[in-house]
Amino acid sequence: MDSKGLLIVISGPSGTGKGTICKEVLKRNDFWLSVSATTRSPRKGEQHGKEYYFLTKEEFEAKIEERDFLEYAHVYNNYYGTPKSNVIEKLEKGKDVILEIDIQGAINVKKAYSEAILIFILPPSYEELKNRIVNRGTETEESLKTRLESANREIECSKEYDYVVVNDTVDAAVRRVESIILAEKCKLKKMQSLIYDKFLIKNQ
Amino acid sequence: MDSKGLLIVISGPSGTGKGTICKEVLKRNDFWLSVSATTRSPRKGEQHGKEYYFLTKEEFEAKIEERDFLEYAHVYNNYYGTPKSNVIEKLEKGKDVILEIDIQGAINVKKAYSEAILIFILPPSYEELKNRIVNRGTETEESLKTRLESANREIECSKEYDYVVVNDTVDAAVRRVESIILAEKCKLKKMQSLIYDKFLIKNQ
Repeated sequence: MDSKGLLIVISGPSGTGKGTICKEVLKRNDFWLSVSATTRSPRKGEQHGKEYYFLTKEEFEAKIEERDFLEYAHVYNNYYGTPKSNVIEKLEKGKDVILEIDIQGAINVKKAYSEAILIFILPPSYEELKNRIVNRGTETEESLKTRLESANREIECSKEYDYVVVNDTVDAAVRRVESIILAEKCKLKKMQSLIYDKFLIKNQ
Repeated sequence: MDSKGLLIVISGPSGTGKGTICKEVLKRNDFWLSVSATTRSPRKGEQHGKEYYFLTKEEFEAKIEERDFLEYAHVYNNYYGTPKSNVIEKLEKGKDVILEIDIQGAINVKKAYSEAILIFILPPSYEELKNRIVNRGTETEESLKTRLESANREIECSKEYDYVVVNDTVDAAVRRVESIILAEKCKLKKMQSLIYDKFLIKNQ
């Protein structure tokens, strides 16, 4: 078996509950959650290395120079990115790594690491997506419209993904994500060296 | 969601326990097991339509003429084959279909129906494969050697498959097969029409 770990990238429009799904998947399995780096200031209670690696602009730009990001973006005057060396080190050790990042970030990870498995989390219906956005806070008609349009633009990006998981219930969605990971481990490509080592070589 | 069912083809060398795995998968899930057709005589207790559809040579050859087999083979003077129309009808109705057939048959099904998902069941080790063959009956040194060589030729065919499932324990193997099926349902290709119908069309 190809003993490298899998890089599983989970994303989806806001209000789809991808955070809850990731938390549950991590609780039930021995995966490693990659922590992003950012130049924004820590909020109350946030710890360096837990929610984010909080870097200065200079530190972040030095890591860009060193090509030590799987992907990064500059959003509202701050950098956000996925540190590369940590992730690669875990994968090489056979550990499966989960990234929970935004949609454009996910697509960029796939460009940098083509074996990455991209999972798009989808709300069960358009109405449900609307409800979840409304329930998140006091929305004006106008901002609801903007958010829905943005969600739809994001949903169009799902065509770049490998899998789409509907979040109808957390349990069902978690089971789908776990199944995808287990199935990926059974793919021929992953199993070929095991077959060779354990069987074919013995019969020569 | 592409509402067609999945065609799941399970095979592997003899002594890998694929029959037990199939039985368990069918017990736990609402899949449809395709029944093969044959021209060999029914053994004691075998029922037409249960273990096999027992056909005459003429009936079988007429179905070959009508191209009503997904695959068929002529072995030791008897025909064996997978009737096509039954399977296609179930798939069209959204039912997932399981085929438990031999290795060459599986490869031929993929040629006839490229969406078929081929799962190869592998014993956990070469030693275990040997033990299972020995425990099956009174084997001479010579016939054991022949069977092992044949198993190894079959294992080489796994490279034509989509997935390889190690049968270390029945429970683990069943969980892998179920995961493969669930993951296949989450593949982008399967989900694209759902995404379009439920989301993108609403925002136009």
